[in-house]
Amino acid sequence: MANSKYEYVRNFERDEILLPNTWIVVRIDGRGFHKLSSYYGFRKPNDPRALRLMNRAATHVVLAIPEITIAYGVSDEYSFVLQRDTTLFDRRKDKIVTTVVSSFTAAYVFEWNECFPQEAATGSQAEGTTLNTEMLPTFDGRAVCYPSWENLRDYLSWRQVDCHINNLYNTTFWALVQQGGMTQTAAEEHLKGTVSSDKNEILWSRFGVNYNNEPEMYRKGSVVFREYALEDEASTGKDGKEGMAADDPGVGTATSDPISKRQADKIRKARRKAKVVTEHIDIIRDEFWVQRPWLRSGKPGRPVDDQPVS
Amino acid sequence: MANSKYEYVRNFERDEILLPNTWIVVRIDGRGFHKLSSYYGFRKPNDPRALRLMNRAATHVVLAIPEITIAYGVSDEYSFVLQRDTTLFDRRKDKIVTTVVSSFTAAYVFEWNECFPQEAATGSQAEGTTLNTEMLPTFDGRAVCYPSWENLRDYLSWRQVDCHINNLYNTTFWALVQQGGMTQTAAEEHLKGTVSSDKNEILWSRFGVNYNNEPEMYRKGSVVFREYALEDEASTGKDGKEGMAADDPGVGTATSDPISKRQADKIRKARRKAKVVTEHIDIIRDEFWVQRPWLRSGKPGRPVDDQPVS
Amino acid sequence: MANSKYEYVRNFERDEILLPNTWIVVRIDGRGFHKLSSYYGFRKPNDPRALRLMNRAATHVVLAIPEITIAYGVSDEYSFVLQRDTTLFDRRKDKIVTTVVSSFTAAYVFEWNECFPQEAATGSQAEGTTLNTEMLPTFDGRAVCYPSWENLRDYLSWRQVDCHINNLYNTTFWALVQQGGMTQTAAEEHLKGTVSSDKNEILWSRFGVNYNNEPEMYRKGSVVFREYALEDEASTGKDGKEGMAADDPGVGTATSDPISKRQADKIRKARRKAKVVTEHIDIIRDEFWVQRPWLRSGKPGRPVDDQPVS
Amino acid sequence: MANSKYEYVRNFERDEILLPNTWIVVRIDGRGFHKLSSYYGFRKPNDPRALRLMNRAATHVVLAIPEITIAYGVSDEYSFVLQRDTTLFDRRKDKIVTTVVSSFTAAYVFEWNECFPQEAATGSQAEGTTLNTEMLPTFDGRAVCYPSWENLRDYLSWRQVDCHINNLYNTTFWALVQQGGMTQTAAEEHLKGTVSSDKNEILWSRFGVNYNNEPEMYRKGSVVFREYALEDEASTGKDGKEGMAADDPGVGTATSDPISKRQADKIRKARRKAKVVTEHIDIIRDEFWVQRPWLRSGKPGRPVDDQPVS
Repeated sequence: MANSKYEYVRNFERDEILLPNTWIVVRIDGRGFHKLSSYYGFRKPNDPRALRLMNRAATHVVLAIPEITIAYGVSDEYSFVLQRDTTLFDRRKDKIVTTVVSSFTAAYVFEWNECFPQEAATGSQAEGTTLNTEMLPTFDGRAVCYPSWENLRDYLSWRQVDCHINNLYNTTFWALVQQGGMTQTAAEEHLKGTVSSDKNEILWSRFGVNYNNEPEMYRKGSVVFREYALEDEASTGKDGKEGMAADDPGVGTATSDPISKRQADKIRKARRKAKVVTEHIDIIRDEFWVQRPWLRSGKPGRPVDDQPVS
Repeated sequence: MANSKYEYVRNFERDEILLPNTWIVVRIDGRGFHKLSSYYGFRKPNDPRALRLMNRAATHVVLAIPEITIAYGVSDEYSFVLQRDTTLFDRRKDKIVTTVVSSFTAAYVFEWNECFPQEAATGSQAEGTTLNTEMLPTFDGRAVCYPSWENLRDYLSWRQVDCHINNLYNTTFWALVQQGGMTQTAAEEHLKGTVSSDKNEILWSRFGVNYNNEPEMYRKGSVVFREYALEDEASTGKDGKEGMAADDPGVGTATSDPISKRQADKIRKARRKAKVVTEHIDIIRDEFWVQRPWLRSGKPGRPVDDQPVS
Repeated sequence: MANSKYEYVRNFERDEILLPNTWIVVRIDGRGFHKLSSYYGFRKPNDPRALRLMNRAATHVVLAIPEITIAYGVSDEYSFVLQRDTTLFDRRKDKIVTTVVSSFTAAYVFEWNECFPQEAATGSQAEGTTLNTEMLPTFDGRAVCYPSWENLRDYLSWRQVDCHINNLYNTTFWALVQQGGMTQTAAEEHLKGTVSSDKNEILWSRFGVNYNNEPEMYRKGSVVFREYALEDEASTGKDGKEGMAADDPGVGTATSDPISKRQADKIRKARRKAKVVTEHIDIIRDEFWVQRPWLRSGKPGRPVDDQPVS
Repeated sequence: MANSKYEYVRNFERDEILLPNTWIVVRIDGRGFHKLSSYYGFRKPNDPRALRLMNRAATHVVLAIPEITIAYGVSDEYSFVLQRDTTLFDRRKDKIVTTVVSSFTAAYVFEWNECFPQEAATGSQAEGTTLNTEMLPTFDGRAVCYPSWENLRDYLSWRQVDCHINNLYNTTFWALVQQGGMTQTAAEEHLKGTVSSDKNEILWSRFGVNYNNEPEMYRKGSVVFREYALEDEASTGKDGKEGMAADDPGVGTATSDPISKRQADKIRKARRKAKVVTEHIDIIRDEFWVQRPWLRSGKPGRPVDDQPVS
């Protein structure tokens, strides 16, 4: 029974190849997480268990796919950055996106019980967080190409500013509701038209909350990446947006004169060994990037215990 | 802190919209399942627990996404067919593919323990199937558009023929190894150049196995769909490929004169109520399709207890 | 001097392949023809010389690319339909679109002097239509896939209805201006909110013009296609949208079991010989299509002198 | 007669938007120019009339589309580079490609008679170059995005190296045939396996031809661009690939903080005024680019008579 008669249907398949020499960002988003977070009783405005689960799943993805340089997460979304010169899956878009989405989902479901520990059958609260087939967490995803280092930096800044704006709003909103006794509608009305300083003021004067003392995980989101010994700003030169060219010739060379397969394997292996950390830190200013040139170059940094004497 | 400065990065995002009035097939594939099936000790040539897990996950997806008419699975792959006139996610490709992949993955991981029951710590065998963070199952996926009913039928036939070819090979191969005592290399060598009848003969003469008595799940794969009362071939007219036009005017009408949102909701609701079944059955011949016209029309069939008196 | 060092840039090229088994429509549009028609003094509301030039250029394209079944033109736009099973340029989109656009442009420029004959240097009028490097006519284009015969028919109907709507408006508008002495602004204001019957009435009562007596080229646009002996409606059965399935099995067969290269060449050759005609005729109703089944089947019809005796 | 019934067909149209912040190259190629050049008796290995016609058409395109910074042509192909930050046609691919192709074709056909002057009916030779409807010149085209300045430079280098390789081969080949009396097959055989120095040697020793004295138009191809006052290498700093970052911050700024519409119009206008020149010059080395920083920055340079005193 030959299959040739039907095989022509393969001609309907299409592979989109992402433009070479661009940074690839895969962003995943929780599907219907508003409903899901109610269903499982996530705490408002932030549930540290849920955020830690996101971070664990992201760490799993970064470990599983060494081509990912850095990941940034806030709320129920996470962005994964693939090295500019990556040839992962020959840069086939569907393969890259679905692999990230599937790996993230698998880890999120698998680690659920770790982050929402199921107590003995003592109370309804604990029971509420038991994962249920009726409401499984799922994520959609997309890939976007950014042609320059500045574009990539701006993308990540965009997400972190968004984190700040949303978290300040949510923190104030839920303070008004939970501590101020307002209805959600009243709180929403109350915040209409306010700017950042207004919300800071409300938090401070009415609830004695200094927003800047809120946990950094809430205010800055989470950054997952391989950590090596930090570089001095002075020793490395600027690696911020102004100095965006610093390694571009290298990048260029990498493209026109691609590194050998052996080198690539070596880099891959070195990356696998590196420690993947989760930080809650400013990634808008240059400092973070200047100290970690490997995030841009894609080459492994120096081991952490090899810290330069200052 | 306005975000407008960075928001331009959104202009780099692209949404691919799948061509209207075409059947959408999302096919997912297990990633590295050769390795994974060794790791967890899946039985060869077929592990009924693993196949049932695939079927459960697929059923979960079909229930979660009523726009899916039918799904066909074999080994570690599954194809999901979306109705020709679906407007799910405005037919955005990435959204459709990642949602299917993520839903499937979530269910697969979640249901793992159901299908590979963890016995008390009595033996290594049981332990071997405990899901482990080092080897989480993941799936990639892709979407393909098929413009005609015949193309779609041929796609599904292609997969089922493939199932047959692979399963006959694998059954013979593992019989030679497990019962015949051959090395895998010797068995491979032995089967080189053989045709179907040769393999049937080997199974029968050397191992007393009549291939046609092998479980249908192995020989035909699994078909997941909403079941209604079967239609008579006579009463419905042919709905096979030859009669492919039967409902095309309807399809056409649906496109040019789209059903109202209320009607769509009603159909969606009716579909949610329908029973989703898993069969191991021939989907290459017309019979299956003629008896189930709703798979093509996208409209709910008659309830099962409304079976016509023959 | 080897070129290998730079050749990697080829990897940035992408070829989009149009979905198989769909009708391909390439629509070209005059760029800036409002300005161009003023510059060369085209007559309003219709300049027969300019329309004939469009038709000649379209005929040239249909002759040059036998895979085109039919073309429909109105004003400064033309749509070219490629056979559903065409493999022209392996269905590469850019190649198909640019070839049609370039062939059309070349013919339009080349034939200009035929359609706007340059009289001896007697007057400014004649001089006005001399093609000038400052204002060369150019066209942009796009390709669209239509998965079903009905979609294709609806596309063509859309263009012909558009022709009717625009031409009725323009005819009335210019009557008001040219014969009624209105300013263009006044005429525009006058027509605001009018429906078809109002415009017919204005033409008839104020200018004694029966719109239905206007030239068919203006009212119906132009249809360019290969003509064979017309078929009886009775003998062929319906080939309209209702009977859209009539040749779909054939189409299907053509896809799954593609015609041999020899057959394709034969068809191509037969097509080259066929007479390409330009008609101004209704293509919305079924009649046109029922009489010309070759437009749908893609196979050559019977020679014209082989007309059946009625 | 409302058109709404058919208008749904618009939903089948797709617009591909080229990735922002990338250099866009539109490359056009003569279709079937091997045959066409025989038909019209183009001289071998190079026909200066045909090359000048290509250059005139390219100049027309560069003048008509001020967003084009530079164009490079060889044989029957031409590449047009659009500014990295161009928003021409909202970066819609089909619109950009077809506009370039159509403009080029129109100019090529229109200018034909200028480049192949039709002598009085004195001889067959002159008659041979009269443009004929049976063999109209047409061009196909494609657009490619290059994310970095280095990628763009490498693309242009690739084309110029190709020009060199092909021209050296053709020059030697036709010398063997035309002056050496070889058949084409023999000449081809003779050149098999030869490297550049071999061909140079053949030309010199057998035909007394010093390849380096061949016209630069043949050896280097043609570069069409807006000329301003050249900059000193010293004064501008390097603008070659090594110094590729020189204006990248500017580019970056342009993206995140786009120039105002007024500024864009001003630049457009300035460009329209600039003189478009055609040179036959090395564009592989940095010198050409260092002297003409406006080709990279996209901003107009200083007027030519404003040449700095050295």
